[in-house]
Amino acid sequence: MRAVLELLDGAMRLAGRNERGQLTYFDADPSVGGNDTAARPLEVFLQAMMACTAMDVLSIVRKKRKTVTAFRLTADAERASEHPRVFRRIHLRYELTSPDATEQDLQRAIELSQSTYCSASIMVRRSGCEITWEAHLLRPTASDSPVASGDVHGR
Amino acid sequence: MRAVLELLDGAMRLAGRNERGQLTYFDADPSVGGNDTAARPLEVFLQAMMACTAMDVLSIVRKKRKTVTAFRLTADAERASEHPRVFRRIHLRYELTSPDATEQDLQRAIELSQSTYCSASIMVRRSGCEITWEAHLLRPTASDSPVASGDVHGR
Repeated sequence: MRAVLELLDGAMRLAGRNERGQLTYFDADPSVGGNDTAARPLEVFLQAMMACTAMDVLSIVRKKRKTVTAFRLTADAERASEHPRVFRRIHLRYELTSPDATEQDLQRAIELSQSTYCSASIMVRRSGCEITWEAHLLRPTASDSPVASGDVHGR
Repeated sequence: MRAVLELLDGAMRLAGRNERGQLTYFDADPSVGGNDTAARPLEVFLQAMMACTAMDVLSIVRKKRKTVTAFRLTADAERASEHPRVFRRIHLRYELTSPDATEQDLQRAIELSQSTYCSASIMVRRSGCEITWEAHLLRPTASDSPVASGDVHGR
């Protein structure tokens, strides 16, 4: 995997480019010379880890032919107070809205992701960070998008 | 630090939101159910690590009152062939264009970042990944943006 990062302004705005030319932006706080036009590197590092485990869970649940109406993942991360300010503890809250997935489907998908598939979570855990999680299965309500048979709608 | 990730479509498009509402996007390859509208989680994980060390280097060089005309960082990463497909080796190529920074300024900035400040690089290294780097100092040419006294222009 190759990635190229380039400075875009006279401050701290950076764009990361993948092999297909897709861009991801980063910026710093004005207190350290940035212009706050995008998220901080460590915020995105955490979100990339979250996206990695989220895609595992979506994929595993769908492979069981269960419908995903909505999905949300929230992380609360604690960093070391001294440099290097690594993540010490991350708590993940998975919320899956599905008319037919079971609690067990969701739990099992998260366990498989965290133990075997999510390379980012596993790297962060191997670095010495404790990762804990909770799972919440929600049922679609009348206000959710209608879910056609075999189809999946995000919110 | 809190982050929220939400599913945006019926496939794999996700948005990560930081505490200030700034968004970062992720998507998957069509072969695993995505629509390829944004970078992959692991690509962004690597780029976030790169942005972390890039900002350190920019900040340290500027604290020495040296001018940054341009900055680019390239990473080549090797992943494990089996799950979990963690990063095994990452090689970083730092390219700083400056009319007045010295090779030593650049080398020292990278060393400080990689040893002390860049939490993302240090987490990745602690996970068992080997990180190597090379540094290239370039001088601005006539085709670069003119650099006003004490000011900095990115390309």
